[in-house]
Amino acid sequence: MSQIKMGELSKRTGLSIPTIKYYLREGLLEHGHRTDINQATYDESHVERLRLIRALSKVAGLPLASVREVVGVLDSESSVVDALTVTQDALVRKAGGAADSAAATDPAAEALLAQVIEARGWHHHRDSPAHQAAVRALSELNSENLTAVLDRVDEYSRLADEIARIDLDIVASADTLEDTVRLVVLGSTLRGPVLDAFILIAQQRASSTLFDDGS
Amino acid sequence: MSQIKMGELSKRTGLSIPTIKYYLREGLLEHGHRTDINQATYDESHVERLRLIRALSKVAGLPLASVREVVGVLDSESSVVDALTVTQDALVRKAGGAADSAAATDPAAEALLAQVIEARGWHHHRDSPAHQAAVRALSELNSENLTAVLDRVDEYSRLADEIARIDLDIVASADTLEDTVRLVVLGSTLRGPVLDAFILIAQQRASSTLFDDGS
Repeated sequence: MSQIKMGELSKRTGLSIPTIKYYLREGLLEHGHRTDINQATYDESHVERLRLIRALSKVAGLPLASVREVVGVLDSESSVVDALTVTQDALVRKAGGAADSAAATDPAAEALLAQVIEARGWHHHRDSPAHQAAVRALSELNSENLTAVLDRVDEYSRLADEIARIDLDIVASADTLEDTVRLVVLGSTLRGPVLDAFILIAQQRASSTLFDDGS
Repeated sequence: MSQIKMGELSKRTGLSIPTIKYYLREGLLEHGHRTDINQATYDESHVERLRLIRALSKVAGLPLASVREVVGVLDSESSVVDALTVTQDALVRKAGGAADSAAATDPAAEALLAQVIEARGWHHHRDSPAHQAAVRALSELNSENLTAVLDRVDEYSRLADEIARIDLDIVASADTLEDTVRLVVLGSTLRGPVLDAFILIAQQRASSTLFDDGS
């Protein structure tokens, strides 16, 4: 068990000492081993925990309540799946904003989603924010009468499946539960913008190819 | 040339009469054919234009200045590619927020993006907001040291390419320039959330498969 002082903890996690002390006071981080009236030492588990908290709060921008919830699951010896579920729900809630509970009751959108999920063989949580987000998004396509997009939902879902597999491959490379959750958080937060930007750039190529009128 | 009255124009476009009058005053919509001191008739071109304006402002949430810019390109007999470029730029600027000009000068991220673009054979606009967004996103991955994700950038870019092809397929089904741009706007605005939600649901399946510890 290595003996890590506060200054080194700060350097290795990229968090300031006042921030780390704040997390200690909030109970998100276990207290170190006290060596003196004003000094304590920490170990690798503190580094791991702080890196996770940093990903949740500084990179993903989750509120402290959500950080506490995720950390709470880790501390309660729940399964990895539970930890990932709580983490994903917190991320989706953050992305989707606070409100939006009414919209997710479109029977046509529910039916279409059920069809996609069945076709893909996805096992998912029907009561998850992700399910709600899918219903809401499909419902908006419906209300705009975008049948051209709805007709291709099967292909989009196949590609979504491939993307999710790569995401999860990456997560599976983590050594610890803390690091697993951290990779999920950083992955969803930072991979999303990369993929979106790539799609836009790819559209630029495709648009010149499809529509180039010689000008 | 069909003779469409204001009331029918409103019904067919889902826009209120005051809103349509506002667009007329702002010069976004050509005036109709005056039939009386207080009455004018419109035709299908007005319906098409209003559907596009509605997609730009009500669905995508673009500010009036951007709507004016897109409509201006259409009115100046530019090419489809020009119209799509201006539209995409407006959408990306909206999504990316106002600031963020400083971050996009990371040479490592630029080099990685150049590599991806070369490998995929994408022809894109180096000075587009999409390019900036990609550099910024890759730069964040770099700064978080997420090599696990960076190592898979090639696969993500291949999937982004496939998604963009479907998007553009859909757009190519439009009959008019107005409708082409409208499908691009609705497509990017509404397909994004569908794909994101599908990825999250697919991750749930994958997470139970990979991590199910029998609980």
